[in-house]
Amino acid sequence: MAARELEYAVGTLGLGGVQVLSQINGGGLDDPRLAIFWKTVAELDVPVFIHPANSLDPLTRRYYLVNLVGNPTETAQATAHLIFGGVIDRFPTVRFVLAHAGGTTPRLLGRWGHGVEVIPELGILTRPLKDYLRSFYFDSCVHDPALVRVMVRELGLQVVVGTDYPFDMGDLEPRSTLVASGLDERELAAIEAANLFATGTNLPA
Amino acid sequence: MAARELEYAVGTLGLGGVQVLSQINGGGLDDPRLAIFWKTVAELDVPVFIHPANSLDPLTRRYYLVNLVGNPTETAQATAHLIFGGVIDRFPTVRFVLAHAGGTTPRLLGRWGHGVEVIPELGILTRPLKDYLRSFYFDSCVHDPALVRVMVRELGLQVVVGTDYPFDMGDLEPRSTLVASGLDERELAAIEAANLFATGTNLPA
Repeated sequence: MAARELEYAVGTLGLGGVQVLSQINGGGLDDPRLAIFWKTVAELDVPVFIHPANSLDPLTRRYYLVNLVGNPTETAQATAHLIFGGVIDRFPTVRFVLAHAGGTTPRLLGRWGHGVEVIPELGILTRPLKDYLRSFYFDSCVHDPALVRVMVRELGLQVVVGTDYPFDMGDLEPRSTLVASGLDERELAAIEAANLFATGTNLPA
Repeated sequence: MAARELEYAVGTLGLGGVQVLSQINGGGLDDPRLAIFWKTVAELDVPVFIHPANSLDPLTRRYYLVNLVGNPTETAQATAHLIFGGVIDRFPTVRFVLAHAGGTTPRLLGRWGHGVEVIPELGILTRPLKDYLRSFYFDSCVHDPALVRVMVRELGLQVVVGTDYPFDMGDLEPRSTLVASGLDERELAAIEAANLFATGTNLPA
């Protein structure tokens, strides 16, 4: 049903992409039943925006931690499920855009890279971890300009503009964040447009 | 019982600190029943090392994610519970050492800082967020030299050496990691000894 709805939304209504949550009723994005959906996404060639669902971790129930910790963690879980669960291997042309700068993903890449080297269970990857990261775009809504710079220059990630508008946890001055990151004009231009256009992301006419 | 055991371990056996997990049977470190334990820690003036417990999030059950995502998240939850739950306010002299560079804490500080500004529920803090961070030491076991540099120079965090020895996810060449971070000799010396000694951390004679 989701695949058919996507065909209708893109083919008939002309939408330029689709959003999914980081989990579906507690199931990960690596659920084999989603294969028909990813196949349709690949055929339609539209980007997938991933937004966190409410964390299932009971320790997030206080102090707004469902947002402050749960949301960024949810996005990292979804990214890991797509990479380690073989979804990227099966659908290498699908482009995923991650909310909130990928959540905690950028912070975890060093740990994941070490894990791939030493944990036999993670030998399921068919390519180097950084190859898989080419399937992802990280938005700039991280409230930490230095991290945006690290994501571009040291982690080599593809960053695009993010605002999380109209939510209170959004970044309503994304240009200020980008300028404060210390990136140069060429890098800012890539974030502001080139990263998405270079890979042919469909936008509504 | 834990408080009495700590008195015995430090007073009689001469141990220099104590380790706790990031949660106690699903309860956070902000549990009011732990107040007597924190009070004893403060009186004995020993550092508390916090190590992740197994994540309660069912989405971590595959691909070793209980370690790759769950562990760093657990540490961030514990840090948040101590800060937002009032433990640091009540026991401001207690020093906490966080495993794995504080887990995802350094990545989340921008988001937490924004949250404190816009979410009324988080008005419980009595001081600026960065004041609370003086109660924490972040170890260097993060498998990402650039992040160590950001933690010191841009986030202003107190970093100490971490190895996670003897585990496979450890960093058995911590000096190499620190040198690769690009920090200068003065900064490296602070990480390697001065940060802990400057605040009078007790070490076994």
